[in-house]
Amino acid sequence: MNAASRTILVINPNSSESVTQGLRSALAGFSSIGGPVIECVTIEHGPPGVATQRDVAEAAINTAAVIDARPDAAAYVLACYSQPGLDLARSITKSPVFGIQDAGVLSAMVLADLFGVIAVAEASIPRHLSNLRRLGVDHRLAGEVALEGDVSVADSGHGEESYGLLIRSAAKLRNLGAGAIVLGCAGMSGHRKRLEEEVGCPVIDPTQAAVAMAFGMLATASP
Amino acid sequence: MNAASRTILVINPNSSESVTQGLRSALAGFSSIGGPVIECVTIEHGPPGVATQRDVAEAAINTAAVIDARPDAAAYVLACYSQPGLDLARSITKSPVFGIQDAGVLSAMVLADLFGVIAVAEASIPRHLSNLRRLGVDHRLAGEVALEGDVSVADSGHGEESYGLLIRSAAKLRNLGAGAIVLGCAGMSGHRKRLEEEVGCPVIDPTQAAVAMAFGMLATASP
Amino acid sequence: MNAASRTILVINPNSSESVTQGLRSALAGFSSIGGPVIECVTIEHGPPGVATQRDVAEAAINTAAVIDARPDAAAYVLACYSQPGLDLARSITKSPVFGIQDAGVLSAMVLADLFGVIAVAEASIPRHLSNLRRLGVDHRLAGEVALEGDVSVADSGHGEESYGLLIRSAAKLRNLGAGAIVLGCAGMSGHRKRLEEEVGCPVIDPTQAAVAMAFGMLATASP
Amino acid sequence: MNAASRTILVINPNSSESVTQGLRSALAGFSSIGGPVIECVTIEHGPPGVATQRDVAEAAINTAAVIDARPDAAAYVLACYSQPGLDLARSITKSPVFGIQDAGVLSAMVLADLFGVIAVAEASIPRHLSNLRRLGVDHRLAGEVALEGDVSVADSGHGEESYGLLIRSAAKLRNLGAGAIVLGCAGMSGHRKRLEEEVGCPVIDPTQAAVAMAFGMLATASP
Amino acid sequence: MNAASRTILVINPNSSESVTQGLRSALAGFSSIGGPVIECVTIEHGPPGVATQRDVAEAAINTAAVIDARPDAAAYVLACYSQPGLDLARSITKSPVFGIQDAGVLSAMVLADLFGVIAVAEASIPRHLSNLRRLGVDHRLAGEVALEGDVSVADSGHGEESYGLLIRSAAKLRNLGAGAIVLGCAGMSGHRKRLEEEVGCPVIDPTQAAVAMAFGMLATASP
Amino acid sequence: MNAASRTILVINPNSSESVTQGLRSALAGFSSIGGPVIECVTIEHGPPGVATQRDVAEAAINTAAVIDARPDAAAYVLACYSQPGLDLARSITKSPVFGIQDAGVLSAMVLADLFGVIAVAEASIPRHLSNLRRLGVDHRLAGEVALEGDVSVADSGHGEESYGLLIRSAAKLRNLGAGAIVLGCAGMSGHRKRLEEEVGCPVIDPTQAAVAMAFGMLATASP
Repeated sequence: MNAASRTILVINPNSSESVTQGLRSALAGFSSIGGPVIECVTIEHGPPGVATQRDVAEAAINTAAVIDARPDAAAYVLACYSQPGLDLARSITKSPVFGIQDAGVLSAMVLADLFGVIAVAEASIPRHLSNLRRLGVDHRLAGEVALEGDVSVADSGHGEESYGLLIRSAAKLRNLGAGAIVLGCAGMSGHRKRLEEEVGCPVIDPTQAAVAMAFGMLATASP
Repeated sequence: MNAASRTILVINPNSSESVTQGLRSALAGFSSIGGPVIECVTIEHGPPGVATQRDVAEAAINTAAVIDARPDAAAYVLACYSQPGLDLARSITKSPVFGIQDAGVLSAMVLADLFGVIAVAEASIPRHLSNLRRLGVDHRLAGEVALEGDVSVADSGHGEESYGLLIRSAAKLRNLGAGAIVLGCAGMSGHRKRLEEEVGCPVIDPTQAAVAMAFGMLATASP
Repeated sequence: MNAASRTILVINPNSSESVTQGLRSALAGFSSIGGPVIECVTIEHGPPGVATQRDVAEAAINTAAVIDARPDAAAYVLACYSQPGLDLARSITKSPVFGIQDAGVLSAMVLADLFGVIAVAEASIPRHLSNLRRLGVDHRLAGEVALEGDVSVADSGHGEESYGLLIRSAAKLRNLGAGAIVLGCAGMSGHRKRLEEEVGCPVIDPTQAAVAMAFGMLATASP
Repeated sequence: MNAASRTILVINPNSSESVTQGLRSALAGFSSIGGPVIECVTIEHGPPGVATQRDVAEAAINTAAVIDARPDAAAYVLACYSQPGLDLARSITKSPVFGIQDAGVLSAMVLADLFGVIAVAEASIPRHLSNLRRLGVDHRLAGEVALEGDVSVADSGHGEESYGLLIRSAAKLRNLGAGAIVLGCAGMSGHRKRLEEEVGCPVIDPTQAAVAMAFGMLATASP
Repeated sequence: MNAASRTILVINPNSSESVTQGLRSALAGFSSIGGPVIECVTIEHGPPGVATQRDVAEAAINTAAVIDARPDAAAYVLACYSQPGLDLARSITKSPVFGIQDAGVLSAMVLADLFGVIAVAEASIPRHLSNLRRLGVDHRLAGEVALEGDVSVADSGHGEESYGLLIRSAAKLRNLGAGAIVLGCAGMSGHRKRLEEEVGCPVIDPTQAAVAMAFGMLATASP
Repeated sequence: MNAASRTILVINPNSSESVTQGLRSALAGFSSIGGPVIECVTIEHGPPGVATQRDVAEAAINTAAVIDARPDAAAYVLACYSQPGLDLARSITKSPVFGIQDAGVLSAMVLADLFGVIAVAEASIPRHLSNLRRLGVDHRLAGEVALEGDVSVADSGHGEESYGLLIRSAAKLRNLGAGAIVLGCAGMSGHRKRLEEEVGCPVIDPTQAAVAMAFGMLATASP
């Protein structure tokens, strides 16, 4: 870890500046006195959203380029639920790299026996399940469901329409036994607080979960 | 969760005020502007350290009494690696309760494939392993080793003698394949930073890990 | 193990003498010639039933006190499905301590690929599941269902009303694939035999299962 | 189950009458007043010991013939650690059939977190491990070791030579973390008690474990 | 392995010559220039289909006799989904022995995250599940369903009636999330290709899968 | 699957033509009469060997380009043990795509309870283990060891020096309990046959294993 640095670099691997702006809002609460600084960056030439496997493969290369260009960060957060290039990122920096799916899911497991996940689209679910198997925690998943409508990553955290879809998904997961719910997309954070109050169990925004872990490491690393 | 409150109550279930003082130092970095407030309390009539199963059983009752007396907290952190009364605590409050073993271990799993744990004493290891089985993550444990000497909980985070024992344990865990190390006692936090630098992999203080999660939840719960 | 002793002490950690009386009836068949003696005790100042987590925590302390007061037993059976203080009990005696959930579930696994559990109340199910994860056998659970009505621990083993609820639960578990059914409460034993005949698969009373194991150990420990 | 019958038929699928005689001694403690009756039979035309896979296959057929010839039993115990024909036996009788490996191993899991197994010969270990995987409990095995010498099934429970080999195996298993030891052969029962006293942890004779379960079922099945 | 030999002996352990004829058709594509030769044999005195556990036990003995009589084969394929006597077969020859359930299931896992299985009859399902647990891959099973009608092993691969039942089973498995389907009987191969085209995911004939593996080993074993 | 096509396209994602030549030799035995055709291609602008995570990420993109350019193949084999871009490849073609690690490991599990893997270099091991966890079969790994010397991918299958390193690794794996050995690199195939004869257990070349599966699918897909 770069000892002199206090910067947590949050990388949004898609080109949607409005998603990055949403991340900034979601992370605004992490203001501190002389403590870690959180900086969110957009990969401008990335895809508008990481949807296909090709998007994932390209986002991996793009993310590595950002890390190469910003060796000054003390920690990196890969702010895409598909965690494109997590292993690559780790191989090119000594600073810790947090993937938001890993951080979100493992944080949920601290709070509940079984967790559920809300995906933006059906197509992402197999990719997510594969990662849960890699983590070895798939037996603690109550279920993963996709929004029952066509919503972009950028819109998934704003407006009544997407909120309505989220609450419906959350209800399904509660019926499956989920004691905590993980938002399966970096774009959904705008709805987290309202959803948690209505659904009656912890709702985890995975970017916040990852930044909390990085923040904790930096907050406790100073002499 | 108590929406008006911003307090994270960190409960040290043993009577050692010096351990609580160590927690305060370890958590000092979580200072924030108008954000969550961290308060650490000692259970004065608790045992000097939670070592035996009887200590665990009594600490569970004592911890519940503290929670009953302090319903104002927005989140509770059970700052003992044996997590005495975690289920009981959860049953008597609507605010989230974080056990430090769960938080420490799951945080380590975000950073490494296999993790290792350093216990203060051999006798605690079966209790810890049992909890890892309950979590369903025992297959990601590289190993757990105890300090090769008689050190109290309070002394485990201070002085050259205990540091020497910690570094020896950490080296064993690295040989077993651990990519991250969890300090298996709330009292060891004073050595975390130095150990991490010397051992060359993330070293997790479990109380810091739990507080980071609670801090993240509160930091992002305001409107 | 206390070699001179032939006593199996069955501890009912709730204050319901009628439950203890039910245990005595359920265990009456274990009469032997010069063999192990089975003695059932009630914890008079315990809760009427072990329902809440606080009940569990207090029952743990109470059970330890009974063991301390009766060091003469050759084996102890903790006759409550929530196994309050099992680890504590084991830490204070050299005689074997049998928890009835562990014994009941593992006995069912000898007879069938998948087992089901009938709980007295919905609230106990998460606690039971957590223990199955600790045992590492949760993947062999076909399902656990609660009685669809408000029945006390003491009443769960007597009368047509509770029997009707039991048979309905058993039918659900059979549909889920259970090849053996475990009664998830020490109070249900009175219905075991009738239920087994009607439901067509082994029905395990967990106290009988635990006592059978203890009986076997003592029956074969004499010179 | 044959309601009128009180007989537990213990089937030794090898032709060694001295092994059957050893079973009778090991089970002598299960004498009861008007309770279950234990009857041990030898399959005279079976192999002298079930060592090879061909022995296992033939013992399966032989065991089924015994069950066909003795439909009067209320329960059957398959007294060979390789459990030849367990599935076949279950398919031809409505009475419960207990395999001694399953019963022994699951009984050990009631008493300890990790168990160890002593095999008569190296060649049996893969067959045993395969069964532990089938049970889904292989992750709780501390280890299985074979006697370091050439001992027959019949001799494995008598004399100083075989006892010396057993104690050496048990010591290895303790070093591997075993908290309970299962005798991996029906012939070893004669050494159980002495071994348990010397080694300091429960030693399970699997035939006794299976008979205890069957005994418990019958003892509690009467009106 | 018998280095001089190029013969893969495919053993149909039932007496149905029409099933063996179906195997020959299914394997006709494996014709090669100077490469492995595939020979399919019927066990004439075997049962017409391996349905009961007694059939399995007897087929094990019969299969061993075939292997003893044909030591010249370079590889053996046990062409029955219940894999009668797989361990026995392996213990009496140095040539590799392929069980078709193992080969079919593991081949499906190369192509899809979750697989489904179609059984000829409900009664075989527990036996199959038990083998999946032995393999340690039961957590990747989407489900196993039986044909909803009474079809013999020989008829399961021919005619519109059995095809209709197969397509209905396949649809159920797709709904359960299966990304590949394994035909749970050696007799079904005649329908494989048509089913695969209609159902839209890989359909694995387990005998073809096993022969492909054996063929690959022999094809690459020559100098 | 492209029904008209009979081509299995084997993609070597590194630029080493000598490795591709080695693949052609290893697969020469799959010659057939009017059956599947095996074509091996080199990615000329790829890295000389896929060693780093960056190599993996770039190889994923390159492999996808090859598949896009060759939509005529009936099946694809990704001939690199790190399986770069396996998910991406699957998302852009309807023909089946075989990763050689998955195929090699699952083929080994058909032949043995525990398998071992030989890696070219220590650095690849964590990547491989992560994939075994994703497959959910890591509990059947006896161990993975790297060659004790600096050997290139291209040299790992030729010459006495690399053979000596392979035999040493294989011996270690046998000691760890491996009943089958998987060559953890597409370049090692030249040594397979000799190694298998010397080491006394099946040695799996993963490319041969994958091609055998693809060959089987095509060989049996014709009308």
